[in-house]
Amino acid sequence: MVFQQVVILPPFERGFHVIDHHIFPLLTKSNIQYGVAHLFIQHTSASLSINENADPTVRLDYERFFNELVPENTPYFLHNYEGSDDMPAHIKSSLLGSSVSFPVSKGKALLGTWQGIYLCEHRNHGGSRKVVLTIYGE
Amino acid sequence: MVFQQVVILPPFERGFHVIDHHIFPLLTKSNIQYGVAHLFIQHTSASLSINENADPTVRLDYERFFNELVPENTPYFLHNYEGSDDMPAHIKSSLLGSSVSFPVSKGKALLGTWQGIYLCEHRNHGGSRKVVLTIYGE
Amino acid sequence: MVFQQVVILPPFERGFHVIDHHIFPLLTKSNIQYGVAHLFIQHTSASLSINENADPTVRLDYERFFNELVPENTPYFLHNYEGSDDMPAHIKSSLLGSSVSFPVSKGKALLGTWQGIYLCEHRNHGGSRKVVLTIYGE
Repeated sequence: MVFQQVVILPPFERGFHVIDHHIFPLLTKSNIQYGVAHLFIQHTSASLSINENADPTVRLDYERFFNELVPENTPYFLHNYEGSDDMPAHIKSSLLGSSVSFPVSKGKALLGTWQGIYLCEHRNHGGSRKVVLTIYGE
Repeated sequence: MVFQQVVILPPFERGFHVIDHHIFPLLTKSNIQYGVAHLFIQHTSASLSINENADPTVRLDYERFFNELVPENTPYFLHNYEGSDDMPAHIKSSLLGSSVSFPVSKGKALLGTWQGIYLCEHRNHGGSRKVVLTIYGE
Repeated sequence: MVFQQVVILPPFERGFHVIDHHIFPLLTKSNIQYGVAHLFIQHTSASLSINENADPTVRLDYERFFNELVPENTPYFLHNYEGSDDMPAHIKSSLLGSSVSFPVSKGKALLGTWQGIYLCEHRNHGGSRKVVLTIYGE
């Protein structure tokens, strides 16, 4: 069995955001009991990750760390057509990745207690983002 | 066909560890010949990666590199409730990822000769870790 | 349904390269309409990523950024048997990852307009690289 649905996320401000509530209800809808859920973002300046879902300071530390790791206005960057956040957003998206996947068991996401799904918005004005959820299993 | 099993790994010390022998016997047990194996770690302060399986110095270099990339006691980190290794562990786990997946062919992991599965333990005292193996195919 | 094929890529020079034309024709061949395509590289000194497919300056900025992030001749690296690009190549491959996966819809890769698949060649003379494409779905 395969379930696939495009999800249009609302615009988020630059930073890291837990989006579980946009995704988990679709697991129930899929009616798949055992398998893997694959979530893919159709953009190159935002990314997905799975990390700590409870403490907002984690997401603040993430944003600051990744801004220092991939600085805007790095002198040698050539690809700055859309502003100083352009090339850093591409690099951050490759470091974090364009997809996450996680096991499904008894129709639910088999995550650890403290795990949630992050939308990582790397642009100042990224706008609405499209993600594709594909669940396969039985 | 879907095969799914939770694997409880013994505690590993902080660092990078090849865990092939904990995972590969389950491929035989699954009886799936062709497909993909998906391994997911249910924690936010340890991660999984696939890399060089033969030379222990690679794993030492990894540990030192990631410690320098994400330093403990970074002044702006807010999330340090569980010690100086707390926030760095979260960031390392997102950089490396909470899952790996690899092809299965003729009932075996279709890895390259030098590839092995790493458990990346980012905490000083991480304890036992749970991973979920899901194999799907035919 | 499962489709699996090993693809032997021609040698690429060190850097980041769009390889869509090596992969996408196989989606048609697989005859799978809905599911996920999983691409895995069987090496520990090259990696895969999904990023911007149009502007060559992005790939130049990537190469320079990752060279600065993981410098050759880092004094504490122990694993340098094959040259100064040896250990940096392993680390880059874990940061970027040994696999990418993306949704398949109506028999085609459901990527965003600007997304392409990168082969990230981290060695000076990596030679030909083997990737395994596995598509599963219906």
